[in-house]
Amino acid sequence: MAAMNRAWIMKTRPEGEPTVDNFELVESPLPEPKHGEILIRSLYQSIDPYMRLRMRLGRSHTPPLNIGDVVVGEVVGRVEESKSPLLSAGDVVAATIGWQEYGVVAAQSARKIDPTMGPISTGLGVLGLPGLTAYFGLLDICDPKADDTLVVSAASGAVGAVVGQIGKINGCRVIGIAGSDEKCSYVVDELGFDAAINYKTQDGSAELRRLCPDGIDVYFDNVGGPVTDAVFENLAFGARIAVCGQVAHYSAVAPPQGPRNLGVLLTTQSRIEGFIVRQFEHRYEIARRKLAKWIDEGRLQYKEDIIDGFENVPSAFIGLLQ
Amino acid sequence: MAAMNRAWIMKTRPEGEPTVDNFELVESPLPEPKHGEILIRSLYQSIDPYMRLRMRLGRSHTPPLNIGDVVVGEVVGRVEESKSPLLSAGDVVAATIGWQEYGVVAAQSARKIDPTMGPISTGLGVLGLPGLTAYFGLLDICDPKADDTLVVSAASGAVGAVVGQIGKINGCRVIGIAGSDEKCSYVVDELGFDAAINYKTQDGSAELRRLCPDGIDVYFDNVGGPVTDAVFENLAFGARIAVCGQVAHYSAVAPPQGPRNLGVLLTTQSRIEGFIVRQFEHRYEIARRKLAKWIDEGRLQYKEDIIDGFENVPSAFIGLLQ
Repeated sequence: MAAMNRAWIMKTRPEGEPTVDNFELVESPLPEPKHGEILIRSLYQSIDPYMRLRMRLGRSHTPPLNIGDVVVGEVVGRVEESKSPLLSAGDVVAATIGWQEYGVVAAQSARKIDPTMGPISTGLGVLGLPGLTAYFGLLDICDPKADDTLVVSAASGAVGAVVGQIGKINGCRVIGIAGSDEKCSYVVDELGFDAAINYKTQDGSAELRRLCPDGIDVYFDNVGGPVTDAVFENLAFGARIAVCGQVAHYSAVAPPQGPRNLGVLLTTQSRIEGFIVRQFEHRYEIARRKLAKWIDEGRLQYKEDIIDGFENVPSAFIGLLQ
Repeated sequence: MAAMNRAWIMKTRPEGEPTVDNFELVESPLPEPKHGEILIRSLYQSIDPYMRLRMRLGRSHTPPLNIGDVVVGEVVGRVEESKSPLLSAGDVVAATIGWQEYGVVAAQSARKIDPTMGPISTGLGVLGLPGLTAYFGLLDICDPKADDTLVVSAASGAVGAVVGQIGKINGCRVIGIAGSDEKCSYVVDELGFDAAINYKTQDGSAELRRLCPDGIDVYFDNVGGPVTDAVFENLAFGARIAVCGQVAHYSAVAPPQGPRNLGVLLTTQSRIEGFIVRQFEHRYEIARRKLAKWIDEGRLQYKEDIIDGFENVPSAFIGLLQ
């Protein structure tokens, strides 16, 4: 076991798009678990857009990071030392220790990963918070029905890719919106979406009108901004929208402006709801078993983007946001 | 019975705020009811903001008015002639004949008014669609709980005034937003709201922050625009918003722009829903009896703004929008 821990802290608060200079790699002695706690060595570090939101000042569901704080985030890691009867050294767990190589958490806040359910890295992806976010956000917030037209933005992302496939499993017509032709091909050819729109090269509103002549019944919003505006122009009556992410705005310096869309909710009698997945925590295991079953049956595909090297965490994060 | 009917038609489509020149008073022979129909003489003409929305081209839950159409709307009137066993001459009914002195409708589409429940004009107000809109929009869409902080815009209006009082009956703290000190005094002193904000003279966001230190749990939106922006800046976690009207935008020539607010839904895990009252039609009678009971018990006050003269309908409508 290394004698030292390494952690990425937020050195300065990003203004606009983050740069590597906003982060600093610091060393410190290994933390020691106290009674009821475990020491974890990180094996896989999750990199997610919501982390940018945590770097902002202002009101959110969790307090913002302070300068000098270790950046937040979940890891899959190995229990190195346990002072709890709940877990033993050698167990593989998912836990929120942030961007660091070692961390100490209360054993009860870590989730043991069953390595027989798939590669342990899926505990940060399709069987982790992204997969669970897709599952509950689509099924509980949007209430999709067979033959509904479902649109998902950031369609090839960790959440969006699962949303679209769960939509297909539930009999929906699924249209993905993504930022490159490669991503569009991926969601159609490999994930089985019915169609995809490249918002960077195509007219989103016109394409949605063409692809969804009866309107959009369900929209799973990961991005906000002009992509979401285009969806609003094409809502069906009684549409349901889940606001899962607003990546387009996370790095905004000034409050972003756009068309006032609430009137569309009135004329289409539609509903929008913002959610975070924690509210469904009591049902995580049920959902995880379903997701694993769909993977087993070949109905749910996933692809993981794994970057090597703890020193590359900030650049991976910056790449994700772009 | 007069030999002629008079009707206000939409002569030209309003651009921006309507003017009297957009309307024309036309005469025509009295319409004749056919089998199953009734001839109604209008006694009270309802004047509502939604009529402006019907004068716009574009997608809505109902098709837009065409040039030359009689302007839409509900009246309380007297059955002059009935060719249906459902109603008899002399009955008082509410029916959608639009801005005209006489109209023919299918008897089954008219609603008989019980004059013992209150003045028959309340069939267009507290016991009519405005009261029902308040009842279902607040109780079904917003799900208010005791001690919730409820904010209602256009608070002294036909819908808003009832929303706030039903909020009080359900144990909410109620803050009204209105456009004059007189209206603010009315909702506080006569209707029992806890406080009111004059959005024309006060800083809405700062006042809401001061009056709602724990945030706004429920917002009943009749107006949209900057008033709604101020509410979004002060939402509590798990807030529920009903979009009932967007009067601030009805006369807009260009699509109105404003801050992109959906991110707030995410960080507060809140929900917005647009609705029209028709979806609750099967429960109208239950609601109407409750509203009448609250009036009887002195818990629900109402004030009607009655303008004399059919020739004054367009100017009354224009005044309402301003």
